[in-house]
Amino acid sequence: MFDQVALKLNVDPLIMSALREDITSEDVSANSVMRMPQRGEADLICKEAGIVCGLQVFERVFALLDDGSELELHVKDGDAVKAGQVMAKLRGDIRAILCGERTALNYLQRMSGIATCTRSMAELLAETDIKLLDTRKTTPNNRIFEKYAVRVGGGSNHRLNLSDGVMLKDNHIGAAGSVKRAVEMAKEYAPFVRKIEVEVENMDMVKEAVAAGADIIMLDNMTHEEMQEAAAYIGGRAEIEVSGNVTAENIAALSDLGVDYISSGALTHSSPILDISLKNLHAI
Amino acid sequence: MFDQVALKLNVDPLIMSALREDITSEDVSANSVMRMPQRGEADLICKEAGIVCGLQVFERVFALLDDGSELELHVKDGDAVKAGQVMAKLRGDIRAILCGERTALNYLQRMSGIATCTRSMAELLAETDIKLLDTRKTTPNNRIFEKYAVRVGGGSNHRLNLSDGVMLKDNHIGAAGSVKRAVEMAKEYAPFVRKIEVEVENMDMVKEAVAAGADIIMLDNMTHEEMQEAAAYIGGRAEIEVSGNVTAENIAALSDLGVDYISSGALTHSSPILDISLKNLHAI
Amino acid sequence: MFDQVALKLNVDPLIMSALREDITSEDVSANSVMRMPQRGEADLICKEAGIVCGLQVFERVFALLDDGSELELHVKDGDAVKAGQVMAKLRGDIRAILCGERTALNYLQRMSGIATCTRSMAELLAETDIKLLDTRKTTPNNRIFEKYAVRVGGGSNHRLNLSDGVMLKDNHIGAAGSVKRAVEMAKEYAPFVRKIEVEVENMDMVKEAVAAGADIIMLDNMTHEEMQEAAAYIGGRAEIEVSGNVTAENIAALSDLGVDYISSGALTHSSPILDISLKNLHAI
Amino acid sequence: MFDQVALKLNVDPLIMSALREDITSEDVSANSVMRMPQRGEADLICKEAGIVCGLQVFERVFALLDDGSELELHVKDGDAVKAGQVMAKLRGDIRAILCGERTALNYLQRMSGIATCTRSMAELLAETDIKLLDTRKTTPNNRIFEKYAVRVGGGSNHRLNLSDGVMLKDNHIGAAGSVKRAVEMAKEYAPFVRKIEVEVENMDMVKEAVAAGADIIMLDNMTHEEMQEAAAYIGGRAEIEVSGNVTAENIAALSDLGVDYISSGALTHSSPILDISLKNLHAI
Amino acid sequence: MFDQVALKLNVDPLIMSALREDITSEDVSANSVMRMPQRGEADLICKEAGIVCGLQVFERVFALLDDGSELELHVKDGDAVKAGQVMAKLRGDIRAILCGERTALNYLQRMSGIATCTRSMAELLAETDIKLLDTRKTTPNNRIFEKYAVRVGGGSNHRLNLSDGVMLKDNHIGAAGSVKRAVEMAKEYAPFVRKIEVEVENMDMVKEAVAAGADIIMLDNMTHEEMQEAAAYIGGRAEIEVSGNVTAENIAALSDLGVDYISSGALTHSSPILDISLKNLHAI
Amino acid sequence: MFDQVALKLNVDPLIMSALREDITSEDVSANSVMRMPQRGEADLICKEAGIVCGLQVFERVFALLDDGSELELHVKDGDAVKAGQVMAKLRGDIRAILCGERTALNYLQRMSGIATCTRSMAELLAETDIKLLDTRKTTPNNRIFEKYAVRVGGGSNHRLNLSDGVMLKDNHIGAAGSVKRAVEMAKEYAPFVRKIEVEVENMDMVKEAVAAGADIIMLDNMTHEEMQEAAAYIGGRAEIEVSGNVTAENIAALSDLGVDYISSGALTHSSPILDISLKNLHAI
Repeated sequence: MFDQVALKLNVDPLIMSALREDITSEDVSANSVMRMPQRGEADLICKEAGIVCGLQVFERVFALLDDGSELELHVKDGDAVKAGQVMAKLRGDIRAILCGERTALNYLQRMSGIATCTRSMAELLAETDIKLLDTRKTTPNNRIFEKYAVRVGGGSNHRLNLSDGVMLKDNHIGAAGSVKRAVEMAKEYAPFVRKIEVEVENMDMVKEAVAAGADIIMLDNMTHEEMQEAAAYIGGRAEIEVSGNVTAENIAALSDLGVDYISSGALTHSSPILDISLKNLHAI
Repeated sequence: MFDQVALKLNVDPLIMSALREDITSEDVSANSVMRMPQRGEADLICKEAGIVCGLQVFERVFALLDDGSELELHVKDGDAVKAGQVMAKLRGDIRAILCGERTALNYLQRMSGIATCTRSMAELLAETDIKLLDTRKTTPNNRIFEKYAVRVGGGSNHRLNLSDGVMLKDNHIGAAGSVKRAVEMAKEYAPFVRKIEVEVENMDMVKEAVAAGADIIMLDNMTHEEMQEAAAYIGGRAEIEVSGNVTAENIAALSDLGVDYISSGALTHSSPILDISLKNLHAI
Repeated sequence: MFDQVALKLNVDPLIMSALREDITSEDVSANSVMRMPQRGEADLICKEAGIVCGLQVFERVFALLDDGSELELHVKDGDAVKAGQVMAKLRGDIRAILCGERTALNYLQRMSGIATCTRSMAELLAETDIKLLDTRKTTPNNRIFEKYAVRVGGGSNHRLNLSDGVMLKDNHIGAAGSVKRAVEMAKEYAPFVRKIEVEVENMDMVKEAVAAGADIIMLDNMTHEEMQEAAAYIGGRAEIEVSGNVTAENIAALSDLGVDYISSGALTHSSPILDISLKNLHAI
Repeated sequence: MFDQVALKLNVDPLIMSALREDITSEDVSANSVMRMPQRGEADLICKEAGIVCGLQVFERVFALLDDGSELELHVKDGDAVKAGQVMAKLRGDIRAILCGERTALNYLQRMSGIATCTRSMAELLAETDIKLLDTRKTTPNNRIFEKYAVRVGGGSNHRLNLSDGVMLKDNHIGAAGSVKRAVEMAKEYAPFVRKIEVEVENMDMVKEAVAAGADIIMLDNMTHEEMQEAAAYIGGRAEIEVSGNVTAENIAALSDLGVDYISSGALTHSSPILDISLKNLHAI
Repeated sequence: MFDQVALKLNVDPLIMSALREDITSEDVSANSVMRMPQRGEADLICKEAGIVCGLQVFERVFALLDDGSELELHVKDGDAVKAGQVMAKLRGDIRAILCGERTALNYLQRMSGIATCTRSMAELLAETDIKLLDTRKTTPNNRIFEKYAVRVGGGSNHRLNLSDGVMLKDNHIGAAGSVKRAVEMAKEYAPFVRKIEVEVENMDMVKEAVAAGADIIMLDNMTHEEMQEAAAYIGGRAEIEVSGNVTAENIAALSDLGVDYISSGALTHSSPILDISLKNLHAI
Repeated sequence: MFDQVALKLNVDPLIMSALREDITSEDVSANSVMRMPQRGEADLICKEAGIVCGLQVFERVFALLDDGSELELHVKDGDAVKAGQVMAKLRGDIRAILCGERTALNYLQRMSGIATCTRSMAELLAETDIKLLDTRKTTPNNRIFEKYAVRVGGGSNHRLNLSDGVMLKDNHIGAAGSVKRAVEMAKEYAPFVRKIEVEVENMDMVKEAVAAGADIIMLDNMTHEEMQEAAAYIGGRAEIEVSGNVTAENIAALSDLGVDYISSGALTHSSPILDISLKNLHAI
């Protein structure tokens, strides 16, 4: 869950912006037929199996529109849900329910979709010490929601943005002149609480990165043998991240490498949604 | 393409917000190793086949960061691209390129993914008079990008939001008392340029909707026979929309129904991205 | 009334902006003499006869400034009020009352002025089937208030903005090449829930518009005879709007034309305010 | 004219907000028929006689939408214009012209209407030393435009808002206990550059206000004889403002009173617009 | 204290912006170890002697983050406090306390520092009729807080900004041509409630300023003798401001000059903070 | 220098907000006497010796107000400047210069003050390997400017905000149950690129922190002997930060401790400004 502070400072403005995207003046359909407030209730129903995530955001959408809104939860973020399961009951002004429904579900479905995919991939790593990481390949203006969903699904977060982590890639190394010089420059420039991660492509770069005192070394586009050699060479002197697709087939191979992290952009950029809907709205 | 007005009024604020999400203070990696501006060039390369979409948004991200940024385009929105194809060359300050790369690609990949899926589904309808529609099941704060991608892919847009179209569903009809009364109330309340769409579930409702003068009738959860009967009954007195999955298998069946529109939420909520990357960044 | 959702999303930000326009730091007069909160009461009095409109906006101004604010209403939007009538009693912190008074009255007086003018013009059409429409000639950043006031006065709303309705004028027709082509292009481009309105100046254009399937035809600058001929020709195949001044003198002539709508920019751009004031403020 | 600083800081945000009110996503009419930019030209024509005001705001609307926009002016703010007069030629992308037209005219017409009314009232005072003042009875979120129009029309501005001037009315005096105490408290509390204005209703209050050192005394609801007595008593020890309607009939009476200012809310709250339109748009 | 209106309109947005500066996504430290809300209490302790100021802003920071936050005050703004004194007890969700602590203290310490310095300087003037003024040399985006602290410390506020006061300096006088012409132009242009202040450097300018009817004359860089001569010449026909450092040594000299105001930029630009901390946080 | 991206995304909005704080409608003084643009030039002069910092922000203030503004620099950020030195020449519209002067100098003076203090303290550490750090005790809404000034003065930045670094203090440790558990929880929760810093008060906590794998250990309120013992124990297994005042007297003692960082809140919360002014403005 987002704590109340993050909710008020950083989540609410995004939800408000999303609501204004969907309601540029008013909901003309609802207001045509319902001229006055009317309290109602609806069921939040999962239409396929998966991991639910984003219930607090779902609830917040309605809370921002209607002070009398209540969500009675039967599940919590991270729970496995089944098709047909009633996950919650929503009560409030029917007009606010109709107005917020689509935005609330758009968040909930997307976040649950990401949590579901993350969980299935994380389970492949369950027997190993390897952690599954997300990337910055998130949907614009949705990063805090998507990074949260990854955590709920059992993954961990890589850096949140370009300002709070140092990742030195080929272009940075080229500009600096060498891995060594790039790491030095970053240690000198970046706030000292930043870890320095270096992306390397071959054993020479691995050695230079270790010598320079990189905190994390990312092995990019290496063969299985190269990765093995790199991991052995690093030997705990830095954390190791590899990027790439984890599948049931290649997991055995990856897990004996001795790497610490596997990162996957697909978690946030290509997870299909989890189908959820709001049903049985009726006056109470 | 977005015209310059829509770009300045409605696109730019979303891009700026997305950039601030990724750069809360500065890009510490780039600034560590590149203390001064340095002009560079990079290739925008497609890594899998699909329909490209969002090149203007991609370009705009850099234009907002760097007045000297230029994008030399080799393709245009809607073009089919192949794996390995160089779609454009980007020139500008290397630091701005590094800062904007992720946000620009996050937009381009997502929009291209939607255009690609829409195109493949629209092609199934190519021999018919049926138009493919999107829905409001879009990613929060990304609707204008996603609705545009649907158009580029060959689809058409349903209403943009709750304020610019009237869609009377079961809850509205229940509140009004009948289909007839709901349509009357909407005609009385909603701005007169709005079409009135009614969602119906059976032949009685179809008849009532036609009698009430609904502009569009949406057939919800009907069997093929019921839809056939409904379409025959309506007989041009209203436009007909059906919602549901279009597949190569069921397309023949749908196409002889005589409906006008098929809408699909999956176009925007579950299209995987199209893999695109920025490569070969070098000083010039 | 605005529903709570429209209020929170779209009305509140405009009220807050208006309050900040009037209170850039603090109310130095009130704060000079009242250093501490003090509960008070005042009467909202109409100083001339008219139709009251905007009571909810009036109330909201104070609610946004003072949680303890209460408005006890004796009338409701749309009621005819007389000079000297006490329309409501306002209670709350005297300092908040003094701070919000001008902004609240500026809204209330303007909205009531529009409702009053609209009512008087709508009454001239009362015996006909013709509806009175507003236009986009509204005061910048006040459109939702002014369009609402038109409805309260008995008018109907034309499109809210350039994004939610299609109106093809001479320039659009010129760019497209013909009325026919313009309507086709609009049907192809615009979201399908939009009605297509065409502005025509002669019978040839009327015929072309009907043939092209325009939903609404606006007769611009035609003589009475031309309008009669146009209406007869259209014969229900499209709705008909005419724009122009409705007066007691010309109403008979217009009402036998068989048109559906008459639109008037003056409703929103030139209605004088209705004089209303807040009196008898006293501590309680 | 607004200087460039005021324009960028305080005018532009209001214009942008007004444009977004009218273009929530895009101009679907223009974009339907004009898919590509096309340079065009149009005439800005006055349709009735009056004082033109707001040409810079008119120009700015288009400049914010289209970098290539140009306004060739034939008149300037404050000029008397005649029906049919071509006041300017506007050139730029036709789509931007169509998008900005309504918002630009809404500002220009309203500002010109206020300047026109102000000019006609100011002329009644031309032979006297009395200055015509506006009030805070302005349209919400339009104050800087309306106060500017008053100046262009030959009036002067009263305080801009509650924070930059002290006006002690009956409620303030009641809270303080006496006129004397209210003035003292204001002198103590308010920034020392503020003048202190006191609203008085009878000779006792006039005397007290003079004794307390009020800078400006506003005579409220006094008879002609009382005002004469008050003016004589004050005798230059404070400036004198009266509020009320100036008409050709009562002007002689007012002008021999020896007051300094007459303020009028009607200048900003009830001036009808000046009819202006953009004509003859054509490609160039 | 700020009244509720100023708080909501003008203080809250600055506090929210400051909080977002410190919490770009969430407080990762607190959220790592406290996954759930937990009510707690802490002591607000002064660590050195001074004048406390900003308690309402301190309280507001937490109120904006946590509806259950309470501040039990033992002192009030303007009180002299001693090292070690418990000034207040703060109760609320521990996570919100940890999140808001730094921002709340940053405001409180800075405002108290300014109040402390102002008090010590104001006391030097206590036996005179001279008022101590601040300037516009405030920290960007902190002016309302710093000007308030000056008042709490016993000073008075000069103009708040460039829009609400007229101060004619050498450049203005040069542009106008003479002191006389500058004052005339300001009286003609500026809202009539503005006082006109003129900065002068010699007796000729003093004489011209008096003749032109300046409300306030600021003596800039004059010797003690020149100031004496100027004050004698002005003789109550305008208020007199001098700018410069007040010290225990020069106070006697300044106080016999007969000037009305002494302004000091150092009050706001160079006061060190007052050391205050939040201690003994514990669950309750 | 801020790179162009950080400038546009994160610096400009703060400058614009600061300018609006000082110019709520317009500069009435300048506009009274200068009705038209007039190009001018002024000298930026240092009035006391120090380290200059913030020239780019100074320049940006004017660039945002006036497209024709130019700053000809004779020094650069970090240079030692002397009293009387002309640091730059500013050219542009005189009205924009007068409008932006105060805001631009408020930034420049404050940033230079911080750089000057930081430099003098950093020099005390010049012969050691100890780095001087800032804290989060910055002025609200000025952090990016103040943290930059610290770097220019020769200091380094601690974490920028609560979201991008983990600092476990007594309250966090208490909530977790032990240092060990707190570090574990942080490693599990926080993005993996975060370093974990722990604040300790005695040797037991030091030992536990080392055992738990803390990246940085902050010695709080320890005696010199305790710090020596702690540093010896840690022996390179974590970085060591101490917080406290660095003076010429205690520097020798601190420098033989073997700590890595000394942090000082006073750098940002109590540095007096460096006196700088804009002189000799004249038309060109």
